[in-house]
Amino acid sequence: MNEDNSREWRLNTVLPVSYYVKNSANIFGLENPDILGFGTEGPGSRRLVVIDLKVSELYLKQIIEYLIKYKIDYHVVILDATETKKNIDTLLYLLKEIESFGLSRKNEPILAVGGGVLLDIVGLAANLYRRGVPYICVPTTLLGLVDASVGAKTSINFENRRNRLGSYYPPIAAYIDKSFLETLEPIEISSGIGEILKMAVVKDLALFEILKSHGRTLYESKFLDCEYADEVINRSVKGMIDELQENLWEKNLKRLVDFGHSFSPIPEMRSLVDDNVPTLTHGQAVTLDVIFSSVISFIRGKLSSQGVVDIIKVAREVGLPTHHPYFADSNILMEALNDTIKHRNGDQNLPIPIEIGTSLFVNDLTYDEIKEAAQSMQAFHDEVN
Amino acid sequence: MNEDNSREWRLNTVLPVSYYVKNSANIFGLENPDILGFGTEGPGSRRLVVIDLKVSELYLKQIIEYLIKYKIDYHVVILDATETKKNIDTLLYLLKEIESFGLSRKNEPILAVGGGVLLDIVGLAANLYRRGVPYICVPTTLLGLVDASVGAKTSINFENRRNRLGSYYPPIAAYIDKSFLETLEPIEISSGIGEILKMAVVKDLALFEILKSHGRTLYESKFLDCEYADEVINRSVKGMIDELQENLWEKNLKRLVDFGHSFSPIPEMRSLVDDNVPTLTHGQAVTLDVIFSSVISFIRGKLSSQGVVDIIKVAREVGLPTHHPYFADSNILMEALNDTIKHRNGDQNLPIPIEIGTSLFVNDLTYDEIKEAAQSMQAFHDEVN
Repeated sequence: MNEDNSREWRLNTVLPVSYYVKNSANIFGLENPDILGFGTEGPGSRRLVVIDLKVSELYLKQIIEYLIKYKIDYHVVILDATETKKNIDTLLYLLKEIESFGLSRKNEPILAVGGGVLLDIVGLAANLYRRGVPYICVPTTLLGLVDASVGAKTSINFENRRNRLGSYYPPIAAYIDKSFLETLEPIEISSGIGEILKMAVVKDLALFEILKSHGRTLYESKFLDCEYADEVINRSVKGMIDELQENLWEKNLKRLVDFGHSFSPIPEMRSLVDDNVPTLTHGQAVTLDVIFSSVISFIRGKLSSQGVVDIIKVAREVGLPTHHPYFADSNILMEALNDTIKHRNGDQNLPIPIEIGTSLFVNDLTYDEIKEAAQSMQAFHDEVN
Repeated sequence: MNEDNSREWRLNTVLPVSYYVKNSANIFGLENPDILGFGTEGPGSRRLVVIDLKVSELYLKQIIEYLIKYKIDYHVVILDATETKKNIDTLLYLLKEIESFGLSRKNEPILAVGGGVLLDIVGLAANLYRRGVPYICVPTTLLGLVDASVGAKTSINFENRRNRLGSYYPPIAAYIDKSFLETLEPIEISSGIGEILKMAVVKDLALFEILKSHGRTLYESKFLDCEYADEVINRSVKGMIDELQENLWEKNLKRLVDFGHSFSPIPEMRSLVDDNVPTLTHGQAVTLDVIFSSVISFIRGKLSSQGVVDIIKVAREVGLPTHHPYFADSNILMEALNDTIKHRNGDQNLPIPIEIGTSLFVNDLTYDEIKEAAQSMQAFHDEVN
């Protein structure tokens, strides 16, 4: 600080951030105390529970029993947390509920129970209310378990752009309870595997090998009856945490975990409103991007054709798509890339695997290559059985 | 990180934050390069300028001449940034403009030109867009100079609560250009002095002495023709930075700079819609709280009656109110305190001066004391000439 003439100052400081991700079986089991941490406890304590509509139908009764047992005054907010409702209206509805609950600033962590969309919205509301109140994540989908709840990103969609508004605001804790997976639809399991597949291809060969050998069993058993389930979840979570540890606020825009997220946001969003193409879940869109990016590597002479084939085979084994009209449309893919370039501050920074589990960043992809890769992806799709 | 069984992880990291506050005379003078820092420069570079409506009428022509000279492609967004429009609608309007401008993520800092309300809104929009884009503050009011632009807080009002939604998101730079003060209304000068008076009473006796001797000259000359003007501004800025340096994210809820902000938010907001009482500017509301809090200290036998009288005299010299119906209404004051307690996580944490320039925190104020202090404040008001 320049004190002699007091004409100029520099404020330098650091924000320490720390949060838990913890396996906690049967998180709302009556004997499990985990969920009540990080806030006032005992009779008369208060909690705001924000829960997804579908999840509430299956689990709200149990959650309320839990809160009653511990004599917690609770208020429940049910959100129909779908991708199309991941918007400003839902955010404002939630914020009004928080205000009318009169949430205290630090000792009444919001309990967020749901999938990635719900966790993203609650995180943003928690960030904005009083400039930040604590929240705890209880993911109920596979994608939430391995991705949304581990990260620090909050968001809503805006102006037809996926996650255009948001912040970096981690929960104080996220609890991983695999038992929620039992009641998921198959498409929700496969979507979650899409993010796991991303992690495997870009940086974890051993994880990929497990998916190759046991992907189908994991998918069909919903991770409940497969000896590799815990290892797959834990490797995914750890892979994510390792990436975030050094780069939580994305000061570095070369991010391996952006793999699968370079071309997919616009196709995903547009598929929700275009009746002429199959609607894409997030994990499906990510998978298509994983395949497309891998094919880019192939046409550049890096990833082997066998590598591409193996990725496509794993995707099919777990019920993920390997083809979509938008990923055959080089104009849409170019538009998506241009939007991503803005988000990466002028650079492409495309992670591509040079072999499965090892990647580099590409910054010189051309329109002609996109065209070629789209055709090649189609050919792979047609040829792989 | 627990790696043996991989059942639990802790992510620990720190966010480094650094920003400038710099005196920069004639910030849009054609030879002054400051405002173009922190982004791409040279022909074809782009900037989004967000400017207050009133400020635009006086200064936009000059700003555009500046940008044209440096061959910057610009887009101007004009906001009618009044307290009643510091809301979600204005925020969303601005975010849509940012999206349609297609702002890049890091190298096109938004230029925010206006008073505290405008800076608070732009800061929040910058935080939310793409989870954070840079912005530069050019405060044009005295309050903006000494308070809003120095801090890291962004906000909008919500559900009739002042600044209920927001974040901590500092600009990359704030430039202090006193020449904007020339075109302010007297009430805007006095409002700014309200925040300076707060800083003086709570922690800076020397600053208070200057206000006592030269407050009227500062007020009447609009800080332009008084040899103490720079010192007053610089002391205020430095006082603020010293407080924020150690507590930017308010982990510690005992904050000296909350002085004047304990009882004032509800009176300020309510006065905007209540035709039966005088409307309060932010600086006016802060001043009334400063006096009220000082009277609390007096009735507790700490601050001398001469201290209270001196504060009231300074306020009057610079055109600030020393009485208001809401500050004679112990029920409203109690309601305001209760809301503040929620914001301070269950504690009162009321800064009160034990002598001018030295303060402590009170945590046991009672309703009866509020009643007594309100009557006493009225009596001081009636007696001081």
